[in-house]
Amino acid sequence: MIPETPADEAVHHGSCRAREVLQRVGDKWSVFVIDLLGRRTMRFTELQREIDGITSRMLTVTLRGLERDGIVTRTIHPVIPPRVDYELTPMGRTLLDTIGQLVTWADGHLAEIDQARAAYDARHGDSC
Amino acid sequence: MIPETPADEAVHHGSCRAREVLQRVGDKWSVFVIDLLGRRTMRFTELQREIDGITSRMLTVTLRGLERDGIVTRTIHPVIPPRVDYELTPMGRTLLDTIGQLVTWADGHLAEIDQARAAYDARHGDSC
Repeated sequence: MIPETPADEAVHHGSCRAREVLQRVGDKWSVFVIDLLGRRTMRFTELQREIDGITSRMLTVTLRGLERDGIVTRTIHPVIPPRVDYELTPMGRTLLDTIGQLVTWADGHLAEIDQARAAYDARHGDSC
Repeated sequence: MIPETPADEAVHHGSCRAREVLQRVGDKWSVFVIDLLGRRTMRFTELQREIDGITSRMLTVTLRGLERDGIVTRTIHPVIPPRVDYELTPMGRTLLDTIGQLVTWADGHLAEIDQARAAYDARHGDSC
């Protein structure tokens, strides 16, 4: 048996909640938004420009989810035209190290993953 | 402007590849599988028992994806009935710290996220 810790229990035995949180923070778009806002406060259009391939709709949904979870704050400045800034909350900042590591890992293992995929596909192409 | 680093460039400016990798390793089921296999080699049925709510189909798809990416190996032992073991590759092991942090973070912030959601819903329920 695997020794049980409180974390195990929450994650593996019944906590849909931990899964739900992971689904949010592990989501690729959330990862990019958190990573960018870790550098500075940004506007919607700035985020969209920096995240290649994200649609307005998807960025809106991602930001709203992060705001609702208390990871991002949205500040409307009463100027004309209105300026809306997004920044990480203190809780959001506690995610930065982990998220940064995930991005660095992904970026550093692209070649190795490519090789693994080619090998897998060759094996399975031969045998099936 | 945000200072550019090689990682920025890959992630934010055109690399669908980094996103694709993040989508795999950030996926909630992959996170649980990697976390569990970080403790020991496991069989399919053991994984399924430990991951509450996962279907056979979803576990199969998750394991196949992780195997193809070179994160997990699948070993068939020629016994009757055949025994199939899953374990992390050396590359998969390099993910353990990050994944473990993510799981711990999710688990440790459930209450704070709940509060944030209740506050958000109250604000938006009032105003809309």
